[in-house]
Amino acid sequence: MSAASYDVVVLGGGSGGLAASFRAAGHGGRVAMLEPAPLGGTCVNVGCVPKKAMWLAADLADRFALAAQLGFDVPATPALDWETLVARRQRYIANIHASYQRRLDETGVVRIGQRGRLVDAHTVECEDGSLLHARHIVIATGAHPVKPSMPGAELGGVSDDFFALHARPDRVAIIGGGYIAVELAGVLRALGSEVALLVRGQRLLGHFDAELSDQLAENLRLQGVGLHFGCQIEALQRQQGRIHATLKNGPEHALFDTVLFATGRAPNTQGLGLEQAGVVLDDKGAIVVDAFQNTSVPSVLAVGDVTGKVTLTPVAIAAARRLMDRLYGGQPQARLDYENVPSVVFAHPPFGTVGLSEEEARRRFDKVTTYHSRFRPMLQSLGDGEVRTVFKMVCAGEDEKVVGIHLLGEGADEILQGFAVALKAGVTRRQMEDTVAIHPTSAEEVVLMR
Amino acid sequence: MSAASYDVVVLGGGSGGLAASFRAAGHGGRVAMLEPAPLGGTCVNVGCVPKKAMWLAADLADRFALAAQLGFDVPATPALDWETLVARRQRYIANIHASYQRRLDETGVVRIGQRGRLVDAHTVECEDGSLLHARHIVIATGAHPVKPSMPGAELGGVSDDFFALHARPDRVAIIGGGYIAVELAGVLRALGSEVALLVRGQRLLGHFDAELSDQLAENLRLQGVGLHFGCQIEALQRQQGRIHATLKNGPEHALFDTVLFATGRAPNTQGLGLEQAGVVLDDKGAIVVDAFQNTSVPSVLAVGDVTGKVTLTPVAIAAARRLMDRLYGGQPQARLDYENVPSVVFAHPPFGTVGLSEEEARRRFDKVTTYHSRFRPMLQSLGDGEVRTVFKMVCAGEDEKVVGIHLLGEGADEILQGFAVALKAGVTRRQMEDTVAIHPTSAEEVVLMR
Repeated sequence: MSAASYDVVVLGGGSGGLAASFRAAGHGGRVAMLEPAPLGGTCVNVGCVPKKAMWLAADLADRFALAAQLGFDVPATPALDWETLVARRQRYIANIHASYQRRLDETGVVRIGQRGRLVDAHTVECEDGSLLHARHIVIATGAHPVKPSMPGAELGGVSDDFFALHARPDRVAIIGGGYIAVELAGVLRALGSEVALLVRGQRLLGHFDAELSDQLAENLRLQGVGLHFGCQIEALQRQQGRIHATLKNGPEHALFDTVLFATGRAPNTQGLGLEQAGVVLDDKGAIVVDAFQNTSVPSVLAVGDVTGKVTLTPVAIAAARRLMDRLYGGQPQARLDYENVPSVVFAHPPFGTVGLSEEEARRRFDKVTTYHSRFRPMLQSLGDGEVRTVFKMVCAGEDEKVVGIHLLGEGADEILQGFAVALKAGVTRRQMEDTVAIHPTSAEEVVLMR
Repeated sequence: MSAASYDVVVLGGGSGGLAASFRAAGHGGRVAMLEPAPLGGTCVNVGCVPKKAMWLAADLADRFALAAQLGFDVPATPALDWETLVARRQRYIANIHASYQRRLDETGVVRIGQRGRLVDAHTVECEDGSLLHARHIVIATGAHPVKPSMPGAELGGVSDDFFALHARPDRVAIIGGGYIAVELAGVLRALGSEVALLVRGQRLLGHFDAELSDQLAENLRLQGVGLHFGCQIEALQRQQGRIHATLKNGPEHALFDTVLFATGRAPNTQGLGLEQAGVVLDDKGAIVVDAFQNTSVPSVLAVGDVTGKVTLTPVAIAAARRLMDRLYGGQPQARLDYENVPSVVFAHPPFGTVGLSEEEARRRFDKVTTYHSRFRPMLQSLGDGEVRTVFKMVCAGEDEKVVGIHLLGEGADEILQGFAVALKAGVTRRQMEDTVAIHPTSAEEVVLMR
């Protein structure tokens, strides 16, 4: 049986796979992309995009009480028709699917709606048995949420199940202390659910600056989330049509309508023929890659969550583009710099961070200085809002190079990007101060911190 | 009569005067500050602060229709009790007054609630005839709005009068094409007034990038503002309890409840004894200063709007602080760099700019490249919103140094500050691209522009 022949065969039509396909085609490569599921992967279908849509609705919900206080004739907590919101969200996602499909058509990328597995270092077999021969094979199959094993674990859902909800659950338990747990808890609470956030450890967001993650916990409490640290979940069982959780250090009445696990994600590396083809995986099942996205097999590359490295959509996209610039764009040194990648947790208000936490900076540098700004944003003050903003800057060395910026407050999601450019360019505290403030904004406090 | 003796006597208790007073006192100087009006000057009382408060209310108003489309049970255009909004705004301002007074008390600055005038290069006379002797006199008396002279001009108000309104005017004419005119028009329209914006010239915001200021005009039209370019106003007169405007190239029915002039501001340099003391003014009545805020009289300094130089609150504050660092803080070279000052016009959505417009860049550099991003923000797309975002980056030279960033869209007010730091630090387009995007935000489009 003869194999169709391509320059690049991409496994996975998520953000990284699409970016690799478009970029390779842009450089003149013949590309086939295998994806049986809707285009866009986790980000578009059950991640960033629907999450942000729900966050935007929750953000609106947070403003009604303030609006009423300012004199608008609106209820402080209006009812929400969840079905309408979900329909709007899915319409938005359908538009993204359509735009990706258009772009595949325009760029001549062949989309194959099947899974693929490696037969050897240059051959992919489709589910229907057809073979694709490739100069390069790019693995961009992403990751999936995992649940802990315990009795009744099947009664709990994961983030994918949150997006499948068609009505607001009244009483929810979220298990986890990472960013997905924080985001789910915040959105559900803002949209009116009673929420218990059950965290095994003693703090949220272990890799973030501790001072701000403590403030984030305080914000969740202010919002009305029941926050339980050192809480262990041992079993779930059905009880009177609801779900009862057996907990250590949890809330007294552990009876919920919905239980969601946000207890980590695992790379999608099963059933791809990777190990047989000689592609080395690490102990978590992620594909081991070097700084150029090379796996242990020269013709096989990997980008995105499947590599377990800084598992964020824009990282997958940027890595995929640089990979194709290197392989087909005449830029032999192109690669993504994984240092100082900014990210935002869409809490209420959001929490943005780039660079080092104070703790990390103190481990790496002899001289560390920190600057802070704590304030109540004007809209909160005009109403009777209690939510405060906390900004923190971490500097290192005598010249006070800015090595970390941590922003927890309204607008932090939008404020951070420009400061991430500045930090990556190596600015000092003096250069921050020498930039004139934009008044009145929250962002100006970043250059005015003391 | 013996004169009280100070290191620094400051005329004016606005942003610049307060900053000069606090900084001088912080460096150990004995300071007296003369201000008969409430503390905070234009910014706090009839400028940035109440403007932003009204903008925040207008921004809320803009979201109700989107919220209703997303499924919230709220009216798309709820009634607003303007008195409540104004009361909340003034409570916020009263808190600022109190905090300034506390800080004056803490820092030992003597506040004198009178006007002062220069008797000579080292002496200020108060209204009650008492004399203050000073090593340095700082003029920070700000500026005031001016109206064109025409029959019936007294029937029209200025921005100060907008803030004195206690109910929403139904039909308003705004005269002018600068940022104050744009801001007043946008807020009043969003809060439900019928608004005609009457502009003498052929475009808005003459010093801003033309491409984006054209989009701003389009946004105003989308919002429902009646925009009239090349419009000349020749007279106002009372007619049936309203105000009739005699116009060339204006709307057909020029009958308004309220007419507001936003036709420029003039420095407050009258009656201060400046010319008699030898302080040179320019042809617009502004105090001429050098790069170190020195006037023509060595002991007399000036900061802020009274100098006519980049008349923004944060500029006055930054100039005042550096002046006092130079005079009393042992930093003989301290001065404000007036280049690349970012600023935001609080339109709906806001318009932020730093650096050069494309037009200016093409005058100064041989090689100019521009990058754009046009998109509909997610919240607009989830609802049926039509307002688009336009971002533009202007680069110069072979290395594509970023020399101008122009952002018109939701969040532009908060997005710009960090990019202003990066631009001032001299980043190139390549450094923008090398920073990983934060997804999904509007800000990420700035580093992804093509």
